[in-house]
Amino acid sequence: MTLEKIGANHSFGGQQLRYKHQSAVLNCEMTFSIYLPPQAEQGPVPVPVLYWLSGLTCTDENFVQKAGAQQHAAEHGIAIVCPDTSPRGEGVADDPEGAYDMGLGAGFYVNATEEPWAKHYQMYSYIVEELPTLINVEFPMDSARASISGHSMGGHGALTIALKNPGQFKSVSAFSPICSPLNCPWGDKTLGNYLGSNRDTWAQYDTVALVGQATEHLPVLVDQGEGDNFLEEQLKTPLLIEAAKKASFPMDIRLHPEYDHSYFFIATFIGEHMAFHARALGAGKA
Amino acid sequence: MTLEKIGANHSFGGQQLRYKHQSAVLNCEMTFSIYLPPQAEQGPVPVPVLYWLSGLTCTDENFVQKAGAQQHAAEHGIAIVCPDTSPRGEGVADDPEGAYDMGLGAGFYVNATEEPWAKHYQMYSYIVEELPTLINVEFPMDSARASISGHSMGGHGALTIALKNPGQFKSVSAFSPICSPLNCPWGDKTLGNYLGSNRDTWAQYDTVALVGQATEHLPVLVDQGEGDNFLEEQLKTPLLIEAAKKASFPMDIRLHPEYDHSYFFIATFIGEHMAFHARALGAGKA
Repeated sequence: MTLEKIGANHSFGGQQLRYKHQSAVLNCEMTFSIYLPPQAEQGPVPVPVLYWLSGLTCTDENFVQKAGAQQHAAEHGIAIVCPDTSPRGEGVADDPEGAYDMGLGAGFYVNATEEPWAKHYQMYSYIVEELPTLINVEFPMDSARASISGHSMGGHGALTIALKNPGQFKSVSAFSPICSPLNCPWGDKTLGNYLGSNRDTWAQYDTVALVGQATEHLPVLVDQGEGDNFLEEQLKTPLLIEAAKKASFPMDIRLHPEYDHSYFFIATFIGEHMAFHARALGAGKA
Repeated sequence: MTLEKIGANHSFGGQQLRYKHQSAVLNCEMTFSIYLPPQAEQGPVPVPVLYWLSGLTCTDENFVQKAGAQQHAAEHGIAIVCPDTSPRGEGVADDPEGAYDMGLGAGFYVNATEEPWAKHYQMYSYIVEELPTLINVEFPMDSARASISGHSMGGHGALTIALKNPGQFKSVSAFSPICSPLNCPWGDKTLGNYLGSNRDTWAQYDTVALVGQATEHLPVLVDQGEGDNFLEEQLKTPLLIEAAKKASFPMDIRLHPEYDHSYFFIATFIGEHMAFHARALGAGKA
């Protein structure tokens, strides 16, 4: 695998970088962003890494530009990897009506089994296997120390991926996650298309379902704004609270009055999420 | 004057708001953003305010989304007002070739005297008079405690406006300012069009020229990245360093290796700028 650097900005004493590469599992060219904190250059100890999964309509750049996470990553000595939210490019299927909630920008972090999606929409394997393998080879990362976080569709991605691979991640956090695709319109539409009509197959990508099956309990932090327009119909945080309680899975699920679904909410609490992951990762200032 | 609220997001315990209003001096509808820190709601003491002037191609939103300033504004209890960078709308003149460095998004914070610009391009009066008058009436501001800052073209705007109105501002700071429009291609083109060919009239909007005439020395902080592609041809920081020295005007002008012209640079040092202004404003934590 070959990386092509397409962006570089100095930021909080470290480097905010952007790369293109050919993804074998997604069968297309992909772009990702990575923040390397100052500690990554100082060596000799490799730095831990946080994977950030973005939400619907986003690319690798939204979090990088709007969350203000570099400040905290530099403070704790944690790298941050931001993948794109779907495969892209010529020949990659999209919503026939161009809707924002399926297809491009809306991979939902699953491995699609149905046509026309299966050829490219393998975001689960890309995030769990191909991308970390690439990152660990190309950058000074401590592959044994990784955590994962995300927003909305990416919060769903982070939670499902961490619950299915607790040995691979030290901690998981989410902002405004889609807690149960089995129980919301976004899930109905997108998993129905990507995975087919047999809803039993959807459960492997449903946080609420996975919580009930979890045998390992890694640290979980979830922040949700109570002024979020998507809360009631799409996000279904109460289902996650109930499932965690029923499964005796300790999770820190926090509800914040007035905050909405935007990056202003993420920016407000990203410092606490970074500190949470730093503790789990045994990072610098933790 | 009537304000129409067009955006509101909770942010760091305060509110990031956006408004439209009819500007008499610009002769068009204008949009601005304002961050109200938590202290603005707690009263009864009105909060001090920082005016932020953005650079070429920006609107009122770039700084709001990318600088991460709300964190520090909330900490110090300072409001931040972000105007647009030019008049906008039907009938407002633009660069005939649609270039980014003149016309829409490129008001240069001057009062144009030449056609077709003079009818709308009165950004100097808008920032110095009309907008603060509106802000002080509509929001819980302490009009006696205001500071000003900006980036690139907005750094030029902040420095020239503060130097010409030292009684109105307690402090001024700039990131990557255009230090001398009299001595760079951006100035040649834009001031030549807005103010005409008599370069003597440009000097009233040239920081380097104004430093030499200043009788009051308000606190000045300037940050400049040494990896900034515009430094040599357009920004001319050495001319400002030389002028300040010659005039015995104490300024903190800092050069930062590797940093570029982007918002990643601004985000890295905005906390130090906010602390600098907080001290001058006698704000909360200062």
